[in-house]
Amino acid sequence: MIKARPEPGATLAEMELPKIQNDEVLIEVKSAAVCGTDVHFFQWDSTAANFPVYLPLILGHEYSGDVIEVGQDVEGISVGDRVSVETHVPCGKCYSCGIGNGHNCQDMKLVGINYPGAFARYAKAPSHVVYRLPAGVTYEEGSLFEPAGVAMRGIDEAHISPGDTVVILGCGPIGLVAAQMAPAVGATQVVAIDVNDFRLKMAHAMGAQTLNPLRDNVAEQVRRISGRRGGADVVLEISGAPEVYDYLFDLLRPEGRVVTIGHVSRPISLNVSRQINLKGVSLKGVFGRRIWETWEHLSSLVAAKRIDLSAVITHRFPLEAYEEAFAQAHGRAGKILFVP
Amino acid sequence: MIKARPEPGATLAEMELPKIQNDEVLIEVKSAAVCGTDVHFFQWDSTAANFPVYLPLILGHEYSGDVIEVGQDVEGISVGDRVSVETHVPCGKCYSCGIGNGHNCQDMKLVGINYPGAFARYAKAPSHVVYRLPAGVTYEEGSLFEPAGVAMRGIDEAHISPGDTVVILGCGPIGLVAAQMAPAVGATQVVAIDVNDFRLKMAHAMGAQTLNPLRDNVAEQVRRISGRRGGADVVLEISGAPEVYDYLFDLLRPEGRVVTIGHVSRPISLNVSRQINLKGVSLKGVFGRRIWETWEHLSSLVAAKRIDLSAVITHRFPLEAYEEAFAQAHGRAGKILFVP
Amino acid sequence: MIKARPEPGATLAEMELPKIQNDEVLIEVKSAAVCGTDVHFFQWDSTAANFPVYLPLILGHEYSGDVIEVGQDVEGISVGDRVSVETHVPCGKCYSCGIGNGHNCQDMKLVGINYPGAFARYAKAPSHVVYRLPAGVTYEEGSLFEPAGVAMRGIDEAHISPGDTVVILGCGPIGLVAAQMAPAVGATQVVAIDVNDFRLKMAHAMGAQTLNPLRDNVAEQVRRISGRRGGADVVLEISGAPEVYDYLFDLLRPEGRVVTIGHVSRPISLNVSRQINLKGVSLKGVFGRRIWETWEHLSSLVAAKRIDLSAVITHRFPLEAYEEAFAQAHGRAGKILFVP
Amino acid sequence: MIKARPEPGATLAEMELPKIQNDEVLIEVKSAAVCGTDVHFFQWDSTAANFPVYLPLILGHEYSGDVIEVGQDVEGISVGDRVSVETHVPCGKCYSCGIGNGHNCQDMKLVGINYPGAFARYAKAPSHVVYRLPAGVTYEEGSLFEPAGVAMRGIDEAHISPGDTVVILGCGPIGLVAAQMAPAVGATQVVAIDVNDFRLKMAHAMGAQTLNPLRDNVAEQVRRISGRRGGADVVLEISGAPEVYDYLFDLLRPEGRVVTIGHVSRPISLNVSRQINLKGVSLKGVFGRRIWETWEHLSSLVAAKRIDLSAVITHRFPLEAYEEAFAQAHGRAGKILFVP
Repeated sequence: MIKARPEPGATLAEMELPKIQNDEVLIEVKSAAVCGTDVHFFQWDSTAANFPVYLPLILGHEYSGDVIEVGQDVEGISVGDRVSVETHVPCGKCYSCGIGNGHNCQDMKLVGINYPGAFARYAKAPSHVVYRLPAGVTYEEGSLFEPAGVAMRGIDEAHISPGDTVVILGCGPIGLVAAQMAPAVGATQVVAIDVNDFRLKMAHAMGAQTLNPLRDNVAEQVRRISGRRGGADVVLEISGAPEVYDYLFDLLRPEGRVVTIGHVSRPISLNVSRQINLKGVSLKGVFGRRIWETWEHLSSLVAAKRIDLSAVITHRFPLEAYEEAFAQAHGRAGKILFVP
Repeated sequence: MIKARPEPGATLAEMELPKIQNDEVLIEVKSAAVCGTDVHFFQWDSTAANFPVYLPLILGHEYSGDVIEVGQDVEGISVGDRVSVETHVPCGKCYSCGIGNGHNCQDMKLVGINYPGAFARYAKAPSHVVYRLPAGVTYEEGSLFEPAGVAMRGIDEAHISPGDTVVILGCGPIGLVAAQMAPAVGATQVVAIDVNDFRLKMAHAMGAQTLNPLRDNVAEQVRRISGRRGGADVVLEISGAPEVYDYLFDLLRPEGRVVTIGHVSRPISLNVSRQINLKGVSLKGVFGRRIWETWEHLSSLVAAKRIDLSAVITHRFPLEAYEEAFAQAHGRAGKILFVP
Repeated sequence: MIKARPEPGATLAEMELPKIQNDEVLIEVKSAAVCGTDVHFFQWDSTAANFPVYLPLILGHEYSGDVIEVGQDVEGISVGDRVSVETHVPCGKCYSCGIGNGHNCQDMKLVGINYPGAFARYAKAPSHVVYRLPAGVTYEEGSLFEPAGVAMRGIDEAHISPGDTVVILGCGPIGLVAAQMAPAVGATQVVAIDVNDFRLKMAHAMGAQTLNPLRDNVAEQVRRISGRRGGADVVLEISGAPEVYDYLFDLLRPEGRVVTIGHVSRPISLNVSRQINLKGVSLKGVFGRRIWETWEHLSSLVAAKRIDLSAVITHRFPLEAYEEAFAQAHGRAGKILFVP
Repeated sequence: MIKARPEPGATLAEMELPKIQNDEVLIEVKSAAVCGTDVHFFQWDSTAANFPVYLPLILGHEYSGDVIEVGQDVEGISVGDRVSVETHVPCGKCYSCGIGNGHNCQDMKLVGINYPGAFARYAKAPSHVVYRLPAGVTYEEGSLFEPAGVAMRGIDEAHISPGDTVVILGCGPIGLVAAQMAPAVGATQVVAIDVNDFRLKMAHAMGAQTLNPLRDNVAEQVRRISGRRGGADVVLEISGAPEVYDYLFDLLRPEGRVVTIGHVSRPISLNVSRQINLKGVSLKGVFGRRIWETWEHLSSLVAAKRIDLSAVITHRFPLEAYEEAFAQAHGRAGKILFVP
């Protein structure tokens, strides 16, 4: 599936097998998931312009598969390995990489954006961003490691203490995974907020309390739930909806923590004095997963069945049905997969 | 129950109701648990000498009850409140207290050691160490907040990451509670080690994998369980048995973390170069609970039924049967309570 | 000096000596500094409305003096002690206080806002917010511990690593103190930014590199100074000027840290996606000083002459000249003191 | 200089220029420093046996020089670069490397131990452990980055707060560098302890207070210096002398922190209960430098002249005088260099 021109849509084409460099591997794709970013690119909307896309491009960066060929300098990965792939390809040379922030490399490539993606039968990948799946993890689960890793990173950065009240804004696939992770790391109250009742229902099925700001006074309800703490200890902003910033900071207790993950399409208005300073708020923006710390955390939780990634999958399509798949991404859907 | 003389044993006597100061409260004791320290004092063994005991003394510092009287300067606590009590009474004036380390105050009083304890019908307590039990927590559970708080503090100081392998050395009541807490905060492999099969069985019932160093090569087993991590991420030493230091550091992966809680009766031998430096080990000694941070964490986990403190209780006695109770503390026992 | 009515100005009056409660002390004021908040209240501008002021009120909350009387329940403070006072009076009972966040207490009193202040000959203070000055620290320095403590807290929350590049936005008294502290804790590049050249000159005299956004392309200059880090490691926002948010996030390297201290008079516009998420920014709002951790850090730096608080003082007035003093606060001034 | 046999001494030989692999570089050595480990190997004493040495071996792992050849896969390093080299060569594949602990890699090579060292005219090095020296840093300083990096790592792991009292046990080159770093990152009291008065004099010249346990009651003196803190906030153990563990923990305040760096030749005796638990001590063992975080911290401090590495150099020899150099290492010496 190729994104050839800066306009809505994409095309399907038969291509030659990618040629790999000495430090790359070739992967037979077994499952590839549709990310919100893919949808932006597919539709070529205003958000797409924020990313350094080079067309023509094969979209798709959340996937798993079998290694079928390895470059001559590759160590530690073999033909036959079941793998998933990190989207952020660090250069390994810059200051960020040097101090352990390869996920925010100053000279980064991004799979499916400026490096060929995985909505295809075969995909190549730099060997140093290939992660071997533990035994017992399925290909479908493995194709969700990349987005679930965003949830994991958000949870890690939230520094949840035992007994915390955690609010999750946005119940798309990442939010739904975060809603499973929060109790798995010690939160005792998890409140999921969305305007989409289909997604709230999924969150509820995963054990979260749910609120819909179209119906509920969310600030009041979160304060009630959090009791004498006076608000949530942690808010994870995953929706990307600018409206949530109207009430987000009211959900927090004094000295509460916010992690922002969702990309917001337009600037929001912030009262620094009242919403940040007087409340003593900590805020952390998340881009990508720590390599490989985040992956190890996630992988262990999945392998131990402490979270169930498959529960967020609602649709599976062959690559040929890509138009239907992308159309579905706007409706009553969790995660949508392309499977062979 | 009074410890009057520096020799084994104690006596029971009818006493006048304690008179409270302006900043104290009077509590009707509903449940009081026997701590290892109480056993040391009862038997007056070599460990007792490490503590600043002033005789005659009422033993007992793990308890809960109802407030039946409050001093005239007391705010925030009322007659009828269901409460538990922190053993470490901070002075509030010293440098330690000033920087938030009241649990290790430089001029600390200790309930049941140099402040009257709670193996009695009524006990007084300084109001600033009284903690109100949340609704739904029983008196018996409340009387275990103090020792369970040691487990909670150990877990907090261990900085467990999602997916960690956690080893618990010693399956007494604190170890058994820690074995429940570790998975509740994200550990996916919990290995409980003890030489007492009765206690190992209790640990197993709480979901831990169990090893007995009398039968098992514990270092080898832990390495196997932890897979390519090469050892446990975290070891909690709760046994106080000097023998465990022979293998404790072999259980850890490089850069692993140790929390020591158990009081060891004799010095141990440590190879700093091999066991600490080359391995990059972090070690933290724990004394008491952070006031009230640790209590809040614990209290939330108990109230949310994420851990079950009652599962570590094996015996209940009236205070009159104190000799039988202390005799039992050496056998097949978890936690032993005095209940009215 | 009394603020009696919700309008510009104040009045001077002879009053009776304050009567102290059992847990309060009476202080003869030796030096009292004018804070920006005092100016807002004096002028009764829009910012004043953000604070829970109860009129009539004695303004002034940055001061030092001698204890001349202590309440009967006061321990650890004696007549004759040289002291400074924390503005944030924690209740000691709420959840925030319980977990060590007394500086952001849920039932807080604020000296000079809803508790009588110190633009007076004598002031009373709750004993638990009184801090004894170390030997060798002058009264004038002691009266600056409260605002300098804000700088100290900002520096502490910035988690400066050895060799960091630190940008300080706003060179008022707090900014000037922060400009001294940053190198004292390991920063090797300190860049002070302000539109006021008088203040920039003071910052330069304290060793900082200086930039004026009216003349300099600050983002470009900071990137140049920070070399291959690609931006500052830390930005301390102390100016409260809404305009700085136009470029603040451009000053940072990936995964950089921001501490906001300045109260901004109107909401700012924030591009969460680009300015926070993609950059991986950490942001922390600061309100008050950790009690007493921040004070101990500051006090030690001052006593060891690692920083010189007196260098930020530019004017001294008797209380009678209060109108001149407040008029001066808008001009070429650092810190303005009232001294007897 | 070649260590050919497991016995005291070494030999000097003319060798062929090392052949580099595709991912290696060739360096013309400009300065190489003698480490304590080199001395152990030279003498072939009991400590040498703790390390995985493969003979014959070129010793020497603290050095700087000019890159004169680069392998064909090397990126980011060019002929002519002035560089220093990290001793710990991480594999990049193991769990430790994956979570950012490459300095304690599970499949690590060590320069000068099981990878050829630098007591030679030319040395090869894997390109991913080559660090480019900033402008203005001399070759001699650059050859001390490796040992000074151990001091830097110790300082980083000590989490020094502004105003801390820091004790440094052992005033060899690493201790002397640490004695300069501690005040540079905020310590206001630095106490250097050694039994060697020559080294104490050097520490004194660097601004530290000094104590000699042969003359001084060090515990009493440190308590006096630290005032009401009741002991040092931080102790850095760099001496490796087993005797210091007799009093090390008495130097600390409650909840104090210890970093151990010195390799101790025999096990020490530790009273876990009294020395660790009741005191609430944190202890961290240090092996190697975080790659490259530690190097960046150090490099910035050196480039900004906040510390002076050259001040710890006392002797310079040509490689031919190696026997004299090693003899000197036992006497009145700081750091000993081999220079061409």
